[in-house]
Amino acid sequence: MKAHVYVGLKSGVLDPQGRTIARSLNNLGFDEVESAFQGKVIELNLTGTDVVAAEARVKDMCEKLLANTVIENYRIEIKPDTKAAE
Amino acid sequence: MKAHVYVGLKSGVLDPQGRTIARSLNNLGFDEVESAFQGKVIELNLTGTDVVAAEARVKDMCEKLLANTVIENYRIEIKPDTKAAE
Repeated sequence: MKAHVYVGLKSGVLDPQGRTIARSLNNLGFDEVESAFQGKVIELNLTGTDVVAAEARVKDMCEKLLANTVIENYRIEIKPDTKAAE
Repeated sequence: MKAHVYVGLKSGVLDPQGRTIARSLNNLGFDEVESAFQGKVIELNLTGTDVVAAEARVKDMCEKLLANTVIENYRIEIKPDTKAAE
């Protein structure tokens, strides 16, 4: 099965990268861009078919390695293999 | 409205970052991780309410700034403001 982990800065944390993207887009003529935020998405291929167990394990991975929980939030989406799940 | 842009390496492009994540997770005892890929997600806040026009503009932003189309793929999701859309 696959797990998608979205990691982004918590609101209130200074995001120079996002500001640079927004300003660069404005400079290129994309005036409709008000603000931008950049985050990471990590796609994991996992063995096993237990979605609930996988979610708990991926949460553990986020806490230990994938996210810096002092300044970052994360969101997990587990995508079971459609064939294996039936 | 919001636009989410997902940018990731094309398949076949060497992904040392993804390999490092997978190996690090394995070393931490997460043996169920077979492989990992890391990409970017860029969230844009846009003025305007025309979803079709916005999608075309964001595609243009990807080609010009957000993605390196030689080695990266991108995927765009437009999220209209639920109130403004009604």
